[in-house]
Amino acid sequence: MKNVESQVISRIDADLLKEFCSDVLVRLGVPEESANIVSDHLVWADLMGISSHGVTRLGIYVKRLQTGLANARPDIRIVRETTSMAVLDGDNGLGQVVGTKAIELAIDKASKVGVGVVGVRHTTHFGCAGYYTLKAIEKDMIGIVMSNAPSTMAPWGARVPYLGTNPIAFGIPTKNFPPILLDMATSIVARGKIILAAKEGKSIPEGWAVNPEGEFTTDPESALKGAVLPFGGPKGSGIALMIDIFSGILSGAEFGSHIGSLYDDFSKPQNVGNFMIVFNIDSFCPVDQFKERVEMMRQEIKSLPRAKGVEEILLPGEIEFRKYLENKRSGILLSPEVIKELREVGDLLSVKFPVEGEG
Amino acid sequence: MKNVESQVISRIDADLLKEFCSDVLVRLGVPEESANIVSDHLVWADLMGISSHGVTRLGIYVKRLQTGLANARPDIRIVRETTSMAVLDGDNGLGQVVGTKAIELAIDKASKVGVGVVGVRHTTHFGCAGYYTLKAIEKDMIGIVMSNAPSTMAPWGARVPYLGTNPIAFGIPTKNFPPILLDMATSIVARGKIILAAKEGKSIPEGWAVNPEGEFTTDPESALKGAVLPFGGPKGSGIALMIDIFSGILSGAEFGSHIGSLYDDFSKPQNVGNFMIVFNIDSFCPVDQFKERVEMMRQEIKSLPRAKGVEEILLPGEIEFRKYLENKRSGILLSPEVIKELREVGDLLSVKFPVEGEG
Repeated sequence: MKNVESQVISRIDADLLKEFCSDVLVRLGVPEESANIVSDHLVWADLMGISSHGVTRLGIYVKRLQTGLANARPDIRIVRETTSMAVLDGDNGLGQVVGTKAIELAIDKASKVGVGVVGVRHTTHFGCAGYYTLKAIEKDMIGIVMSNAPSTMAPWGARVPYLGTNPIAFGIPTKNFPPILLDMATSIVARGKIILAAKEGKSIPEGWAVNPEGEFTTDPESALKGAVLPFGGPKGSGIALMIDIFSGILSGAEFGSHIGSLYDDFSKPQNVGNFMIVFNIDSFCPVDQFKERVEMMRQEIKSLPRAKGVEEILLPGEIEFRKYLENKRSGILLSPEVIKELREVGDLLSVKFPVEGEG
Repeated sequence: MKNVESQVISRIDADLLKEFCSDVLVRLGVPEESANIVSDHLVWADLMGISSHGVTRLGIYVKRLQTGLANARPDIRIVRETTSMAVLDGDNGLGQVVGTKAIELAIDKASKVGVGVVGVRHTTHFGCAGYYTLKAIEKDMIGIVMSNAPSTMAPWGARVPYLGTNPIAFGIPTKNFPPILLDMATSIVARGKIILAAKEGKSIPEGWAVNPEGEFTTDPESALKGAVLPFGGPKGSGIALMIDIFSGILSGAEFGSHIGSLYDDFSKPQNVGNFMIVFNIDSFCPVDQFKERVEMMRQEIKSLPRAKGVEEILLPGEIEFRKYLENKRSGILLSPEVIKELREVGDLLSVKFPVEGEG
């Protein structure tokens, strides 16, 4: 089924890639609107240079849809609600579809009472936390988005996984492009980077992870069997714990080691939890004043004397949005491994991968 | 005026210490109820073993009250309000007095609509962020409390201070004592620990701070003139930035290097900002279910195989609450330097320090 050509592909147009992903999902019964949400999300991650959370995830989503552990047509319901908060049951829908509903609901509440908080249960891998905050930013709101994740990270003091690499993102609207976007895993690195290193046969830096015996390892395969370590020692470990308490326990999803693995557990739905907080800036202070002051802060920070070896002081998200503009213009660079993977997914569902060539 | 005796003091009763602090503040025109809030806060920090934020701060509060830069009788006003949020103007009152009003308001809103968010402007050093979350915990609510702080920390990539060591605390109610309390500065260590090391003539570990030339230093005096470093590299730096955006910019207080120094700037009020978020657990899920699941998580984490050299896996706040019980029983151990400081403050305002002896 593989179609390996001799031609070397350099870059793939974002829209073509999006269309491919949507077509694949639609073949599996995902409504077109939902498929477009997921594909927009995945391709956005690749545009931002966060390839660990890009189209490389399509294959596993397909597999989980095929096994029925991800629900192509979920009945997403509000199970608890006040004017300022809600709890959503995602009915095991694709994480991006459920997450988009959740952030829209939080935005709607924030527009009415200044703050909107939405907890989500029974969802699946939702991709990049930062993506959702963009929806808030578009409305001149601030978004905080977090999710728990399958157990891969050792809490501070332990040598086996219990917590996930629970990500959190903060999106801040600004006067000028780009917005400030802090989107981070609470592990030293996103586990997706270790997965990608394993796929690409590369080694990882020491200090990222331990092997199953609790020793540092540079082998991504061994790291994936062991445990990723939290960023910032006990503080980062504590933040990961808080994200799990909000996303898992408060929202009524699973938590800790009870969350189903995306890749390795096909016995049950994941039951991931999310937690989203939106602040309507205008309720706190005039939006223009807020943006002027953020701009002043940005300029002041960027003008500070730099540490040794630093060429430019960067605000959170700055590198990613530069890559976004570049990739939007020049196309997305996919590794041969990821192309091969996508081509296989396409072949399986009779959707033609848009570009011929290597991989 | 000093009263140095030969007797060696080991421990001081918490209630006696509280009374002393209250009496001092009342002499400066602080209403008794407010004085009790501040002294309860300072002594709580000492009970928890967070001596960097304990009664060692009384002297500087006194000095700022005397110069009028902290307001003994502030008119704390709500300047913006919806059912779920408010912005408070603290009128330069003592940070603990303003902060207590703010968390009470957030709790009140959360009890009505599930979520309460309060931004605070025109306040002063508010002590331990964690203290405020206890008020939420008492009501079966979750508290997130943050504050910006005078510029002492270099943002990632810079070698001079711009951000404060902006603290954040998360307080989680539990079925059994103690609650889970993550209370952390976003610097590698709280700057208060460097201040205390300087007062006590001790050196600090390498990696905590840089001197004014941007080099690592173990000299606390030199570190206080240079810059503290953020925890967890760019991620911790990003979180400190977010705390400043919420506490400073969104709440309408000062931000970055514009915040007045507590110790070194007597030309203006500090205009610190706080940001507090309270979630009413019962709005999200049954409180008993929440607490059962947190207890399960706690037991699971504490039972994990331990990393090499670790005797016990500790949850956030666990050490501090153990010290709290011990110090409550045995009294608070103050260093001779801090005792000397308090005695001088007492002498100045004709309030007798409750214990004779060294210092």
